Parts: sequence; C-alpha cells; structure tokens
Amino acid sequence: MTDLILACDFGGTKLSAAVVETAVLGQPHPQWRTHLRRFSPPGATAQTDIAMMMQMGRELLAGERPSAVGISFGGPVDYQNGVVRLSHHVPGWENVPLQAQFEEAFQVPVRVDNDANVAALGEWRFGAGRGVADMLYVTVSTGVGGGWILDGRPYRGATGMAGEIGHTVVDPQGPLCLCGKRGCVERLASGPYMAQDVAAARGLPTEEVTGKLVAEWAAMGQETAVAILERGAWGLGVGIGNAANLLNPARIVLGGGVTKSGERWWQLVQQTAHAIALPEIQFNITPAELGDDAPLWGAVGLVLTEIVT
Amino acid sequence: MTDLILACDFGGTKLSAAVVETAVLGQPHPQWRTHLRRFSPPGATAQTDIAMMMQMGRELLAGERPSAVGISFGGPVDYQNGVVRLSHHVPGWENVPLQAQFEEAFQVPVRVDNDANVAALGEWRFGAGRGVADMLYVTVSTGVGGGWILDGRPYRGATGMAGEIGHTVVDPQGPLCLCGKRGCVERLASGPYMAQDVAAARGLPTEEVTGKLVAEWAAMGQETAVAILERGAWGLGVGIGNAANLLNPARIVLGGGVTKSGERWWQLVQQTAHAIALPEIQFNITPAELGDDAPLWGAVGLVLTEIVT
Repeated sequence: MTDLILACDFGGTKLSAAVVETAVLGQPHPQWRTHLRRFSPPGATAQTDIAMMMQMGRELLAGERPSAVGISFGGPVDYQNGVVRLSHHVPGWENVPLQAQFEEAFQVPVRVDNDANVAALGEWRFGAGRGVADMLYVTVSTGVGGGWILDGRPYRGATGMAGEIGHTVVDPQGPLCLCGKRGCVERLASGPYMAQDVAAARGLPTEEVTGKLVAEWAAMGQETAVAILERGAWGLGVGIGNAANLLNPARIVLGGGVTKSGERWWQLVQQTAHAIALPEIQFNITPAELGDDAPLWGAVGLVLTEIVT
Repeated sequence: MTDLILACDFGGTKLSAAVVETAVLGQPHPQWRTHLRRFSPPGATAQTDIAMMMQMGRELLAGERPSAVGISFGGPVDYQNGVVRLSHHVPGWENVPLQAQFEEAFQVPVRVDNDANVAALGEWRFGAGRGVADMLYVTVSTGVGGGWILDGRPYRGATGMAGEIGHTVVDPQGPLCLCGKRGCVERLASGPYMAQDVAAARGLPTEEVTGKLVAEWAAMGQETAVAILERGAWGLGVGIGNAANLLNPARIVLGGGVTKSGERWWQLVQQTAHAIALPEIQFNITPAELGDDAPLWGAVGLVLTEIVT
C-alpha cells in the first residue's frame, strides 16, 4: 500500500495543493505525485476558498485516502488549536477551525500553521536548511516574515507569533511604517515599500513602480533605485545580524521575490549581517531552494514532524 | 539519605558556592543548607580559582557526597563539552575542561554553562520566570547579557552563544561601542557606558562616576543624568521589543544593578518594549527575584534540567 500525504497552501489569491508518496521522501529531491494550482476567484470568502481547496484535494487523491493532511495558511494561525485567526486578504477567516474542518472532510489527522513557519519547515526538511539544528527562514517579498527551527524542531513562541523579523526596528530615525513605527525591516526591505520610496523620490505614480522594477533600475545604475535597494539590503542585514546575536542559528535561509535583486543585494545583506553579529557568532546566509513550493513542502514537513514523527 | 547538590559560581572577582538538599527544592522558596562567598585574591589565575572553589565545595560538603555539581561561569562556555572558552577577567581560562576537572575531583556528574544562561535557568526554576515555557532573561549591569528558556528548556544556540541582546543594534547613528558598532543595547544601557557618557558631558573624570551615581543624579533631576538614563532605558526597550517580535516569549525577566534605577526607568523600558512589539505579541517584563544568587540557583537548575531530569 502507498502512503500518501496531502499538502495544501492557502496563499491569499492562489490556492495550491499536491500529493506526495511518503516512500519518496527520503530521496534527495522528492517530487510530487500530482500538483494543482488555482486562482481564488474575485469575491472569494473563507467558505468558498475552503470548498475549492477540499475539491482540489479530492481531485488529486482520486479516491485514495491520505495518511494525513498538512496545511499552510497565509496569515496568523493558532497552531495549538488548529484555528486560523484571520486573513488580511480574504474576508470570513476570523477564528475558522480549519484543522477540524479538514479532519471532518478527510477523516485523517490534519495540522495547520502559518506560511512563514511552514516554509521554514519546508526549507529545513527538503531545501536549503537541511542538516542544521538551528535555522531562521526569512521571506522578503510584499512583506518580510520569518520562521524558526531551534534545537531541531519548529519554534512558534508563546502564542504562535514568533518570527516577526519584519517588524523589528533597525533604524529608529527611518521612514514610518504602517505598523506605526519607524525603520522596521519590512519598511526598508520589502518590495512594495522600496517601490513606494523610489516612486516618491522620482515623482512617479506609485502604481507604476514595483519592487522588481526597483531591482531592474538598480541593476542599470539608476541612482535612486540603487540607494533604496541598498538601504533595504542594509536594513535586512541589521535585522538578521541582530537575530543572530539573539539566537545563534547556524543558518539563515532567504526566500521571496526581493532575493532575486542580484549579487550586490546579496553581498550587502551578508556583509551587514556579519558585521552586526559578534565575531564568535558564525552563520551562513543562503538562498531558499524550494521557491513557490516551500509552503507545500513545509506542509509535508508539518505532517512528518508533528504527526508521523 | 539526603540528596545534596553542590552549586558553584565563578563570578570574575567573587567565588560563591552553596549546597542544597534536593528534598527542599519543591518548596516555594527553598533555602541553602550552607553557603560561602570569597573574593578571588589579586593575581588569581584559572588554576588558583579552581583550587579555591574545590576547597569551598569540600568545606560546604563536610565529608558528604553530592549527587551532582552545577557550575556557573562568568564568560563563554562550550556547554556540550563542558569547556570554558576564556575569561575576560582572569588569565589562564583558555579552553579549560572545567566539567571534567570537577567530575574527577568530586566523582559525580557535573554541568557547566555561562552565567547568563545559568541565571536564566535559575529565575525560571526558582524565581521570576516560574510557570512560563518561553522566557528571556536579561542582566543589565557592567554589561548586558541574556539567556533563553524556549519551549520549556534552555536554548543555547548552535555554538552556545545565544542571548547576546547586549550587542544587538538599536540605533545605527548612536555612540560607538568597544565592539566596533554604533548604538548596541550594551553601549546605551549598561552602567559603565552610561557613567562614561555622563562624565564626558559634565566634564568630570570618568573614575568619579558610576552607573549607580547616574541613577541617583537622575532621581534628583540632574538633566544630563536623566537624559542618559532615559536613553539607556529606551535602548533596552527597543532591544527587548525586537526580541519579543522575533521569539514571542511570554515573559522577560530583568536582573542586574541597573534595574535598581527607579520607577521611571522601568516605565520607559516597558513602554518602549511594548511599542516596538506588534500588538498581537503580548508579554510581561518583571524584575528578577534571586539577585546575586541567580547563578547559584541556576547551577542547581542546570543539574535538575540536564542530569536528574
């Protein structure tokens, strides 16, 4: 008999699901047996997204029964109780008992956690974090989030909120963030904020600039773009260096669109982080390996770590 | 038969040792059976300090045999191997296998860790950290150090260096620290640095000002002292808020001489830390309860956590 794990990723506007045979998980680069990605329609709610995801799962399983289901959710989750706290993108997600609903639907054990924690677990079990016991995963994208593996297991904090490196402050005189503080890592290093700053400095409409464009302009030597991108890399580097001083992880794994900003960006992040960390605190900073599939592989990792063990 | 634990604290200039009966450890406020504190003589080396500490242990035990020995050391320790890396105060401590030497001398299991980790464990088992699974202990004194309890056990990091909150950067435009960076928490909040800044601002000889004096002058309303002390409280608050965002601990315990700087200092630390932490990240900040005995009680905790279990 083949043991199957169903992995689901509620990604805001995209829903992804995949099935993997547990027998292949020991391989260096395991592959999905089947995989589906669909856009959540306009006007989607928690209810319609859940129904669509369950339908995708059933299609992928084609009548077979999985041994467990792992779920990544793009928003805060009460991991202990398997309850989604809310979504910043889709209405109706307040206090949804997602774990119980999937356990009811599939009649197997289910675990749910937020996407940053789950992606950290994915990179640790199947990607750039393999082989270390203490790791910080950071995604630098439309926001800046993080997840920890400490002493060889996921660390979530007292109420599941650990990993918020994006809202650590690295420059109290820096620009104002929506969170109300100045100079948090997310305000300096995330794509939309960098785009906003470049647009403002160059007198362009905000909607014409993206984080990707900032990186392209910087690569061409456009001064404002270079300055803003380098400030972002510096801010992220200080945040990582501070985290390294606090936790002494062996590895930092960086994922998300902004990490595609080129060699110079990486160099600055590395230099800054190592300059901020004490000389005795050694670590390496490496690119994530799993790309968009990190939450799905992490959902598999969630099952392996928390259910099968 | 009475089970005894011998606790030792190598504190730089002071050596402390104590013996406790394990039978009393369940009590709300257990007491030492016997306790000794001696100053390390001028010209002391690792060798003379070790001999003196072993002699103190033998005196306290008076012929009885302990079931285990816990040791706190005021400097970096390779916990896994029980080896002291070095001391910044006493010569000869480079790579001393302190655990093996005490195991040889007392013929029982021994554990050694650095004073910040051990004090964290002490406050957690016997002091202000009782009852929480996730805690950060910070000592604010001649330096600023820290130790973690995460998921109900000590967390030391990949190479035992976790907890260095003192060298996290909170103000990159701040004053220069001996570590080479600007605006680390220790540069802003530690006693000697605050004293140095007040002395410089008021044109006084450095040796005439101490951290304690700064707090006394601030209490009397002396402007420079107020400004420097408040800047220190702010810097510590930012460091704690950042740590809370990263790890979501339930409690922060603050010990060390600078925490005796009065109500206003505490208020500022609290306000700043909670303003820096995301609103969803709740924690309380409380004074350490064990005072100078934290490392000794922590040494007992080390035995209970790592040996007796």
